[in-house]
Amino acid sequence: MEQKIKFPRSQKVYLPGKLYPNIRVAMRKVEQVPSTSFEGDEKIVTPNPEVYVYDTSGPFSDSSMSIDLKKGLPRLREEWIVSRGDVEQLPEITSEYGQMRRDDKSLDHLRFEHIALPYRARKGEAITQMAYAKRGIITPEMEYVAIRENMNCEELGIETHITPEFVRKEIAEGRAVLPANINHPEAEPMIIGRNFLVKINTNIGNSATTSSIDEEVEKALWSCKWGGDTLMDLSTGENIHETREWIIRNCPVPVGTVPIYQALEKVNGVVEDLSWEIYRDTLIEQCEQGVDYFTIHAGIRRHNVHLADERLCGIVSRGGSIMSKWCLVHNQESFLYEHFDDICDILAQYDVAVSLGDGLRPGSIHDANDKAQFAELDTMGELVLRAWKKNVQAFIEGPGHVPMHKIKENMERQIEKCHDAPFYTLGPLVTDIAPGYDHITSAIGAAQIGWLGTAMLCYVTPKEHLALPDKEDVRVGVITYKIAAHAADLAKGHPGAQVRDNALSKARYEFRWKDQFDLSLDPERAQGYFRAGHHIDGEYCTMCGPNFCAMRLSRDLKKNAHNDKQ
Amino acid sequence: MEQKIKFPRSQKVYLPGKLYPNIRVAMRKVEQVPSTSFEGDEKIVTPNPEVYVYDTSGPFSDSSMSIDLKKGLPRLREEWIVSRGDVEQLPEITSEYGQMRRDDKSLDHLRFEHIALPYRARKGEAITQMAYAKRGIITPEMEYVAIRENMNCEELGIETHITPEFVRKEIAEGRAVLPANINHPEAEPMIIGRNFLVKINTNIGNSATTSSIDEEVEKALWSCKWGGDTLMDLSTGENIHETREWIIRNCPVPVGTVPIYQALEKVNGVVEDLSWEIYRDTLIEQCEQGVDYFTIHAGIRRHNVHLADERLCGIVSRGGSIMSKWCLVHNQESFLYEHFDDICDILAQYDVAVSLGDGLRPGSIHDANDKAQFAELDTMGELVLRAWKKNVQAFIEGPGHVPMHKIKENMERQIEKCHDAPFYTLGPLVTDIAPGYDHITSAIGAAQIGWLGTAMLCYVTPKEHLALPDKEDVRVGVITYKIAAHAADLAKGHPGAQVRDNALSKARYEFRWKDQFDLSLDPERAQGYFRAGHHIDGEYCTMCGPNFCAMRLSRDLKKNAHNDKQ
Repeated sequence: MEQKIKFPRSQKVYLPGKLYPNIRVAMRKVEQVPSTSFEGDEKIVTPNPEVYVYDTSGPFSDSSMSIDLKKGLPRLREEWIVSRGDVEQLPEITSEYGQMRRDDKSLDHLRFEHIALPYRARKGEAITQMAYAKRGIITPEMEYVAIRENMNCEELGIETHITPEFVRKEIAEGRAVLPANINHPEAEPMIIGRNFLVKINTNIGNSATTSSIDEEVEKALWSCKWGGDTLMDLSTGENIHETREWIIRNCPVPVGTVPIYQALEKVNGVVEDLSWEIYRDTLIEQCEQGVDYFTIHAGIRRHNVHLADERLCGIVSRGGSIMSKWCLVHNQESFLYEHFDDICDILAQYDVAVSLGDGLRPGSIHDANDKAQFAELDTMGELVLRAWKKNVQAFIEGPGHVPMHKIKENMERQIEKCHDAPFYTLGPLVTDIAPGYDHITSAIGAAQIGWLGTAMLCYVTPKEHLALPDKEDVRVGVITYKIAAHAADLAKGHPGAQVRDNALSKARYEFRWKDQFDLSLDPERAQGYFRAGHHIDGEYCTMCGPNFCAMRLSRDLKKNAHNDKQ
Repeated sequence: MEQKIKFPRSQKVYLPGKLYPNIRVAMRKVEQVPSTSFEGDEKIVTPNPEVYVYDTSGPFSDSSMSIDLKKGLPRLREEWIVSRGDVEQLPEITSEYGQMRRDDKSLDHLRFEHIALPYRARKGEAITQMAYAKRGIITPEMEYVAIRENMNCEELGIETHITPEFVRKEIAEGRAVLPANINHPEAEPMIIGRNFLVKINTNIGNSATTSSIDEEVEKALWSCKWGGDTLMDLSTGENIHETREWIIRNCPVPVGTVPIYQALEKVNGVVEDLSWEIYRDTLIEQCEQGVDYFTIHAGIRRHNVHLADERLCGIVSRGGSIMSKWCLVHNQESFLYEHFDDICDILAQYDVAVSLGDGLRPGSIHDANDKAQFAELDTMGELVLRAWKKNVQAFIEGPGHVPMHKIKENMERQIEKCHDAPFYTLGPLVTDIAPGYDHITSAIGAAQIGWLGTAMLCYVTPKEHLALPDKEDVRVGVITYKIAAHAADLAKGHPGAQVRDNALSKARYEFRWKDQFDLSLDPERAQGYFRAGHHIDGEYCTMCGPNFCAMRLSRDLKKNAHNDKQ
């Protein structure tokens, strides 16, 4: 497996904190060649500044660091966490399942070797980023994300609303989430909220019959390379405990899971046999491994399940259908809803965020914005307040399949009913008729809902609805969603968002092809397409040929106008 | 070259007119398998209706027709045109260049063999669809498009605002264009206007060094196969006169060109040498070949050229930069603007529509909605009125590169300044940072501007800015734009637009995989992805595995609920 991540003419740089001078905020700097022009016979060479790029690739792209997947990444945040003095390292892992797996010698060959003992809040201590924020404390994590969001805006003289104090306030008021399980100190702090850069999540995960641990770790790095801000491990097959350990120990971005999947594996796929006890143990197991956020479908109420009966596509969320079935079979309220306060008590001890899963999200254009969906949203609004009461950071998952004219209602209603908690949507797909291209049908919706205020977009790959994504699908899915997120950042006017567009466009206009490639989201692909289509690397491209190059003509006009003035 | 176009389980069908019982409006009908369910032990089989699909593939997808590219397509509209009694067939082509090419024996091996003599309006007759519409005449072309837009809505009981009279009114008032050069009788009538289905245009065309006639004709068919509604031939190399003849004679959709490209070839690429006389002869040459609409950059005024000086990317339109250079070199008003009435007089004689080219469209996010762009739009608004006075159908080209928050102003301003003439945009791209993925950056903008009222979207392929598209790029570009257009149709509530989404989603929910593929925009790709990723063709897919299939669980719940009720 290639363990180093490289981008052309790029350098990893670290900006220091001001409140915390020791923090080193990672970003990528892309070199540019100078512009050249002529005034008469004189050649004028004007340097072009380096462009700073938001970077999710962690230590893998730092050429000065040695990487050993078997040891895991450096534990960046451990010192910050420990020095706060409010957590303790446990003598052993506390979940029964975790202990059982640990003691099973037959798994030794699969096991990550350097498992550290987990941390947990000391009794009576409130150790979540939200708890600190409410108490007025700006943590190193908060300053880190403030710097990360702004990049080099200060140097460029671009005004920004994002200060460490602003970050703190957004977290305190629940408008933003900083996922930061104290047992995943390897992750670089990032923030999810509508007053920040729009983030994207990617899903990986093996299913019953496919994939190996190596493959999953490789996909995780691959996702981080192309720009995935968080990573959900949706594995449902064998050895998901061990696979998850490998992923978390090597993942520089927050990791999310859907614990009900693993709980269901533990009862051999028999939904009826699921119970609060099994689920609870699964939460603890994963909290202690370092999962940063859990999708929990606690918004499904027994009395709302039937609302999906009228639908064209019923329930398309896996977690949603599992919990609906459980409610109906037992004719009982969902144990996730009933035990939501207990869940939050557990999560608060590790600072795991809750992502309220939209089990009743629409799975077709026909079902968008229906009663089932909005009934669940109301419940989520109730739950988010309960989470915040326990200092648990929370965000809300959203659809799915929604035609463009119904997107706005989704966003406005979510903000209203869920009290400003961040929204995290899957697409939405704006039509159902293009399987094989659902990264595109959904990017159209994602860009719009991102602009309207959605904080994180869950990517969709070309294989959606058809098969599990391979590496190429992950790459295309991530880039497609970086496009949607960046388009939203531009439309929202995020500080400095347009710097890269302007630099790339200037390079394009000046025929600095290499800069055009290297400033792009996918330099390899851009350059590859160009190379395949060209013989000449001159001041025009084969699309137009030398006589028809608009930009060359346009530049010549400008030059002449300039010379005329002299 | 494969000359037949096939879609799985599809049949070409023809609906008759009511006003004109002899017209046969082509569409594609897709079969579905029945749904099966169980009530207790009883198997219930419910048939699913055939789904009608808008079809741009012309006779190529009619298995009962024999195709001979050397003879060209059947001349569908010739009888309609001739029977109106207001055109005459000319004794010979009238453009000098056309005559020269005809007499050049060295071109015989390239030449289409069955060139018919051109038609032209009899003196004093106004023969454009707009002229008829203004006189209250509903032509067969108008009834054809009314039926085509509605598909089988009547049978399905779906209400529609689109009647032949509505079509007439929209054309009369300039809100819609029905491109229908009397010398391209092979084309099936279609309509471009914001109260109709959103259309897409594809560009093909060789440049100086690449491509052959065969390749260009093949690309044309390929574009029609995947759903291109019109086709622009942007060739700039050798033998473009002959290539164009082959394309038009075999093209079932309207063909557009940018005549200034060929005019420039005629003066060996020397912009200064362009003249009204050369341009005029080019217009006549192409009118008589059957081009259905011309992009004409008459909106660039001498005094507006300098407005682009402040830009990051100057002028990115080829036509725009050519005309700007001409204006500056000669220090004179553009001959396209000066002779616009003469141009319209020519176009009116063949019913060629004018597409007012946006020579000053922005080529970067930075330049969007600037003075240069909007100054040109004002001029276009003036020109469109002049075109309509001469009964010339007209539409307006638009950008380009525009961030999402600036898209709405483009549309609203265009409607206001251009008096409701249809808008035809290139994307717009909502960010500059993703060369290699500009079909996606632009589809995001295209879907939005289509929803807001843009009538036709010019496709962008993954190779935009990098190289000329190959066949795979054309396919991806067309499908991507079908997605954008269809998403806009859904959002606008076009009659029946959702029928296909609903059918495909129902098929998905019922695990009718074959129907899911065959109802999709690209059945081959959907099925290919599925096949590559699956061993089992059962009631779940390998994405979730058998225990985690939400839709299967959801269907089981529904079944049980149903059985409980009995």
